[in-house]
Amino acid sequence: MRVFDRDSATSMTKGPLEITRWEQFQATRELPFGAMWYSVAPGQSSPLDQHPETELSIVLRGDAEVEVGGVTTFVPQGSAFLLDSEEAHVIHNRSATDPLDILSAYWMPRSAGAGDSDG
Amino acid sequence: MRVFDRDSATSMTKGPLEITRWEQFQATRELPFGAMWYSVAPGQSSPLDQHPETELSIVLRGDAEVEVGGVTTFVPQGSAFLLDSEEAHVIHNRSATDPLDILSAYWMPRSAGAGDSDG
Repeated sequence: MRVFDRDSATSMTKGPLEITRWEQFQATRELPFGAMWYSVAPGQSSPLDQHPETELSIVLRGDAEVEVGGVTTFVPQGSAFLLDSEEAHVIHNRSATDPLDILSAYWMPRSAGAGDSDG
Repeated sequence: MRVFDRDSATSMTKGPLEITRWEQFQATRELPFGAMWYSVAPGQSSPLDQHPETELSIVLRGDAEVEVGGVTTFVPQGSAFLLDSEEAHVIHNRSATDPLDILSAYWMPRSAGAGDSDG
């Protein structure tokens, strides 16, 4: 059993975000996805992000407002949201006092007929 | 963007656990793992569990005590733990008042030389 402990992990600050990448835990190389924790500071929003990976985000603390294509969706603590490949997104933390903590897991989608043999 | 909302999902009670399986969300078929939320009631423990899947657990609410091979490890809210294939485990909720909420993701490990072509 291996623990990925957020409090003792190395993080970096990037604008309104504090990012803690799981690559620093060697055991995460065994996972079928990459992952990171990030926090959005109170009253702040993430920069617009868009990438080829599919991304599953789990709301660990606080409530998220997820903006995609001009539509904002409320995702409460404990729930999750799935972003498709290349779906541009902004994450808002509407709390004036508390950070919004999210665990993000991401992977390259398997394109149909791309030669994969075991899907 | 798809939301997996825990509060409106269908759950089942199994002894001291409340289990909410992600299979009920059609979009989760696109994920490279299965997943479920579960809660351990205050002061309770999960039954001993052992299975071939590798399992990553994220502590969403409360703090977990994870018992493996007679050793108990504290995993605080927001952190995660990875159980190897066939590693028998019990999850304790030591709080007398609050549930312990966990998101579990699981997948079959890829065995070396098992014929996979893209690992």
